[in-house]
Amino acid sequence: MPVTLEAAQLFYEFHNLYARYAEALDDGPLELWPTFFADHCMYQIIPRDNFDRHLPIAIMRCESRAMIEDRVTAVNETMMYEPRYLRHHTTDLRIGEATDSTAAVKANFSVVEVLPDELPRILMTGRYIDRLERQATGDWLFSEKLCVFDSVLVPNSIVFPV
Amino acid sequence: MPVTLEAAQLFYEFHNLYARYAEALDDGPLELWPTFFADHCMYQIIPRDNFDRHLPIAIMRCESRAMIEDRVTAVNETMMYEPRYLRHHTTDLRIGEATDSTAAVKANFSVVEVLPDELPRILMTGRYIDRLERQATGDWLFSEKLCVFDSVLVPNSIVFPV
Amino acid sequence: MPVTLEAAQLFYEFHNLYARYAEALDDGPLELWPTFFADHCMYQIIPRDNFDRHLPIAIMRCESRAMIEDRVTAVNETMMYEPRYLRHHTTDLRIGEATDSTAAVKANFSVVEVLPDELPRILMTGRYIDRLERQATGDWLFSEKLCVFDSVLVPNSIVFPV
Repeated sequence: MPVTLEAAQLFYEFHNLYARYAEALDDGPLELWPTFFADHCMYQIIPRDNFDRHLPIAIMRCESRAMIEDRVTAVNETMMYEPRYLRHHTTDLRIGEATDSTAAVKANFSVVEVLPDELPRILMTGRYIDRLERQATGDWLFSEKLCVFDSVLVPNSIVFPV
Repeated sequence: MPVTLEAAQLFYEFHNLYARYAEALDDGPLELWPTFFADHCMYQIIPRDNFDRHLPIAIMRCESRAMIEDRVTAVNETMMYEPRYLRHHTTDLRIGEATDSTAAVKANFSVVEVLPDELPRILMTGRYIDRLERQATGDWLFSEKLCVFDSVLVPNSIVFPV
Repeated sequence: MPVTLEAAQLFYEFHNLYARYAEALDDGPLELWPTFFADHCMYQIIPRDNFDRHLPIAIMRCESRAMIEDRVTAVNETMMYEPRYLRHHTTDLRIGEATDSTAAVKANFSVVEVLPDELPRILMTGRYIDRLERQATGDWLFSEKLCVFDSVLVPNSIVFPV
């Protein structure tokens, strides 16, 4: 298949979007996170075993942008957790079916966690299985973001979104 | 050197290829793996120390696509190993000499392994040193894929290709 | 915002530059490292806590290309350290303000370290906060490279640049 100019531009556009998404999570402010989502959307973090067996149990699930905003409030104001830094690597981005206004995108991710006085460790690896919608403004937003993580062991410290 | 449109498109094309390659290894089916290779090809996983000293010993070596297909059969049917998940990160892709029909490409990779009830750990890091050939169909396939891994310690659990 | 062809080409150009930068550090020769910098430049490796609090203490600081060249000499000729291999992953590259001749670029990085007879481990994760200048030759060089690493614990083994 020949690569069109449009495909190369879309690739750049999504790469840039995913990089800014990671930046919002790693370097904040976390209030930026909901701005990547459409009003009607679904965000889930789900273990790979469940995903493969079509089991619906997710360790984080937000069914609208409003719920995503609630999650930010919870992280910032009500949850108790040890301070930590996170660093995402988003790689191997691949664009599936795409029209002028919708696109299916997958990518690999890892999240490295740094706790005070500890060396960095891998908190989670996995893949994003996403759907994006282009808005009237021309911007792309997530209508669906599914974070399928590879671990069987569920980390008890998932405070922050992925 | 000015960047041509062709170079930017090729960059997109190879990025996409390497992402789909990683996807085949991480998320399967493993039967997809041989489809990335030309009939006449060479696939090797070789430790960096050997590579630097021009020693030929590889920990995995397939001298044709047929041997690569055999490897898939071995992994799926005859080898004994603990179940595990893998996740690749392919980064820092760099295109070397390229013509209309051949290209030299390098990239960094890491493979994170997740065993049941264990946290993710880095199995291997290294670089790909590859040659690609464009087919009559327009698709690019690997004529040579050399996976040079950084470890001195040879993991005894290399079941899956990299 | 619509993505211009120029933006997509610049994205390719910087991706390529960062990949070759990582290659120089991981696979050498280290003498290539200074060639990525303008004569007048600033290179720093600084902990995130200091960066966030505007504290200037860096664990490596070079205030010109000449100092960067000195650092190479130090690593190659005067410093004592255990042999090791490094592997960078540069991801999530994002281009900020850019003109024909200057650009602000950020990216995430991790450095994996492999010591003899040990498994790979993450030495450092963080982000690059960089400024680049296009030279009369058309090449882009770093006028400023700030490596902000996430760890609170300062590794005592930072021999090589990041």
